[in-house]
Amino acid sequence: MPHFTRPIQAGDYAVIFTAQRTASGGADYGAMADRMLELARAQPGYVGIESVRGGDGLGITVSYWESEEAIRNWKANTEHLEAQRRGREEWYSGFSLRVCRVERAYGTGNLS
Amino acid sequence: MPHFTRPIQAGDYAVIFTAQRTASGGADYGAMADRMLELARAQPGYVGIESVRGGDGLGITVSYWESEEAIRNWKANTEHLEAQRRGREEWYSGFSLRVCRVERAYGTGNLS
Repeated sequence: MPHFTRPIQAGDYAVIFTAQRTASGGADYGAMADRMLELARAQPGYVGIESVRGGDGLGITVSYWESEEAIRNWKANTEHLEAQRRGREEWYSGFSLRVCRVERAYGTGNLS
Repeated sequence: MPHFTRPIQAGDYAVIFTAQRTASGGADYGAMADRMLELARAQPGYVGIESVRGGDGLGITVSYWESEEAIRNWKANTEHLEAQRRGREEWYSGFSLRVCRVERAYGTGNLS
């Protein structure tokens, strides 16, 4: 199942989530990450997601949405709220989140 | 040397560059990547950069800028133009680029 429903275009929104995993903890992290991907895709207004984690535990996940409303709904999803809490308390030593409006997009197409 | 000059804020611009490395080629890729980082930091309007590459060769690099003009100038940098050409022809099997305006930012701070 591809991670994008269509090409990204001007007017979409991107949520850039950068996080450093803690060295310890999180045997259930992988299952949570898979579940969050599944849940995000099922949200109204979801357009796509791309995610990379390096060997040093630094990860960047960019999710794309049709509107700010879609982002608000996803942020308030009950299971996602619990994942956010565990992320802050257990899984991440630090994170940053930037909500952005796409001005233009180009390239050879989506890569995931 | 930290990769950010200050926290990211509303009104900044983010360039999300996602690329899949080719399996072959690119002994000089690492040196080019280091040089591009050095050059980007020296550009007027540079704010920060964060970059991750996974074991499967998929990478996400997000660079942050004060203005669209700063992005245009960086895109047109002569050494950078040559790196872009080699990326398209040799190093990447595919890429996508999204230029975005930051609407809001939060978290525990920059991670690189």
